[in-house]
Amino acid sequence: MKNIFIAGSTGSVGKSAVEVALLYPEKLSVKAIAAGHFTEELKRQIIKLNPSYCILSLKTEMDNAKSETSGLTGIKTKFLCGEDGFSELISNENLDIILNAISGSSGLMLSYLGLKAGKNLALANKESIVMAGDILNRVAKFNKADIIPVDSEHSALFQCLNCGNKPDLKKLILTASGGPFYDLQNGAFTGVTRDMALNHPKWKMGKKITIDSSTLANKGLEIIEAHYLFDVDEKDIEVLIHPQAVVHSMVEFMDGSVIAQMAQADIKGPIGYALSYPDRFHGLMEPLNFAQIGRLEFLEPDTQKFPFLNLAREALRVGRSMPAVFCEANEFFVKAFLENKISFTGAG
Amino acid sequence: MKNIFIAGSTGSVGKSAVEVALLYPEKLSVKAIAAGHFTEELKRQIIKLNPSYCILSLKTEMDNAKSETSGLTGIKTKFLCGEDGFSELISNENLDIILNAISGSSGLMLSYLGLKAGKNLALANKESIVMAGDILNRVAKFNKADIIPVDSEHSALFQCLNCGNKPDLKKLILTASGGPFYDLQNGAFTGVTRDMALNHPKWKMGKKITIDSSTLANKGLEIIEAHYLFDVDEKDIEVLIHPQAVVHSMVEFMDGSVIAQMAQADIKGPIGYALSYPDRFHGLMEPLNFAQIGRLEFLEPDTQKFPFLNLAREALRVGRSMPAVFCEANEFFVKAFLENKISFTGAG
Repeated sequence: MKNIFIAGSTGSVGKSAVEVALLYPEKLSVKAIAAGHFTEELKRQIIKLNPSYCILSLKTEMDNAKSETSGLTGIKTKFLCGEDGFSELISNENLDIILNAISGSSGLMLSYLGLKAGKNLALANKESIVMAGDILNRVAKFNKADIIPVDSEHSALFQCLNCGNKPDLKKLILTASGGPFYDLQNGAFTGVTRDMALNHPKWKMGKKITIDSSTLANKGLEIIEAHYLFDVDEKDIEVLIHPQAVVHSMVEFMDGSVIAQMAQADIKGPIGYALSYPDRFHGLMEPLNFAQIGRLEFLEPDTQKFPFLNLAREALRVGRSMPAVFCEANEFFVKAFLENKISFTGAG
Repeated sequence: MKNIFIAGSTGSVGKSAVEVALLYPEKLSVKAIAAGHFTEELKRQIIKLNPSYCILSLKTEMDNAKSETSGLTGIKTKFLCGEDGFSELISNENLDIILNAISGSSGLMLSYLGLKAGKNLALANKESIVMAGDILNRVAKFNKADIIPVDSEHSALFQCLNCGNKPDLKKLILTASGGPFYDLQNGAFTGVTRDMALNHPKWKMGKKITIDSSTLANKGLEIIEAHYLFDVDEKDIEVLIHPQAVVHSMVEFMDGSVIAQMAQADIKGPIGYALSYPDRFHGLMEPLNFAQIGRLEFLEPDTQKFPFLNLAREALRVGRSMPAVFCEANEFFVKAFLENKISFTGAG
């Protein structure tokens, strides 16, 4: 039985993590959840999971949560808030793994606090590792904690790397579905609306990451993430467009062998893998049917049309805080686009 | 440095193994070679490798080899013959690994003798394991020797199995290029000649295995081989037609994840992997270029048109000596077909 903390439990990944925990009650015990705001979804999770702790971002949200759940019978949940809440939880509760599914750069502090306390980190918040990869790696190593990626691509790489030793690794191949606009002509980007960008062909995800997928900024962040997670040079991280989103990523070894991980485009896969590692949860995803899928296609990415790929590489080459700048600048403009303040191509 | 013995050194796999050994002289030292007959190819290998031992099938062949090489300067090779020769070599020479690339059922005795002496076995001779899988597994286990498959499919499975634990394994997926006649209409098989059957679209191999590939008897043998090598039930071993022969096989785990191994259709890959395991030889094969390959296709096998698949499954279900009977009967008829004694469909 593993004791887990699901942070960002009302987001897209968090909700799937709760689903996984409820599917395997004999393997996972949810000791704590955290969310930015009190919502009906959070209330439902408290009722279903009866966690020891629930952490809200702010005191006002925490007070709201307390009063909204005070009438529930049998609920023993203690409410905390903010960074102090994280610290209190981590020092008081016997956690085996923290799933960080907080959206955006505000997820960084939990990654740091968890690793500092020697807790294994199932990391869905790629911004943590993009912004402070070197620091988190050092803290993890010093405190003997593992970082297990929950991103489907990095989960795939993490799995494939078991097939060889580090000195025999040649390159990582990150696959990308290409998002909703891969076939659009360059000039047609000016007509892209918020709703069009939020309609991903393969993955149902949160808003921020869905916009990032439509611009391929997400793949840029993933190059940086892969660099820090697996200690691989940017020039040895390739991106390959694969519209079917069946191959989630691949590893090439020095002998010319390539190992690929495939599965349904279902985030329960990477979540379950991170929470069950080194075992696997039985019956977690629908199996693939290759004869039905028929074909898998691969093509080079168009880095002219999608400049974020090369921008991310440049940020890595510059190093120091440049990946954090790339990450924050992207987040700022995505927010502006989602609030209809700028167009898809950035015109005001 | 690993000391190796290449048995069947003048066959298709054996010649590639010699090539691999010459490519990595700082990793591999060929201490012995064996062949059925003395040929110019064997003479060239003796000159290039100067092995401590060379074993021929019969005394007449051995005497011939001795006299044909007696004039060569600097060659210190000792000639032996038959089973006694294998035994003498194995007890006298400090071998790390025996590559058994003998063709057909006559390869069985060497597999047995090597494992009995506790030598690791790189196994290209699938007939050994098909005919006596249970016995070889027991002998290997008792003498703490590993069997590492050299068949491209089983090498792929062996690699992919590193990504999970045995209790989490769901099934093995053997890929098959389909051979030269996959698209032929059922009735058209009567017109198939020896030359047509020897023309494989993807792999350059020996005659026996090329005929086996054209009938899919090879894939039947591989189902049996996979059963014994990996202790997986016949019903959990699937066959998938994959004309591009890029994916060499796949493993499905209980969570719905599939791990695939891919590479050029180059037997140097599986040979090198077996000889370098758990490391990998750098620069062994040409890398794959996925954007150039473009697409990978998969379809269900037609078991009506290619009855060997179900015959092999039935042989496994019957068990005991039936896999050996399947193997020997197939070998008998392949020989008759190659000698133009019967047609492709078996009419005399």
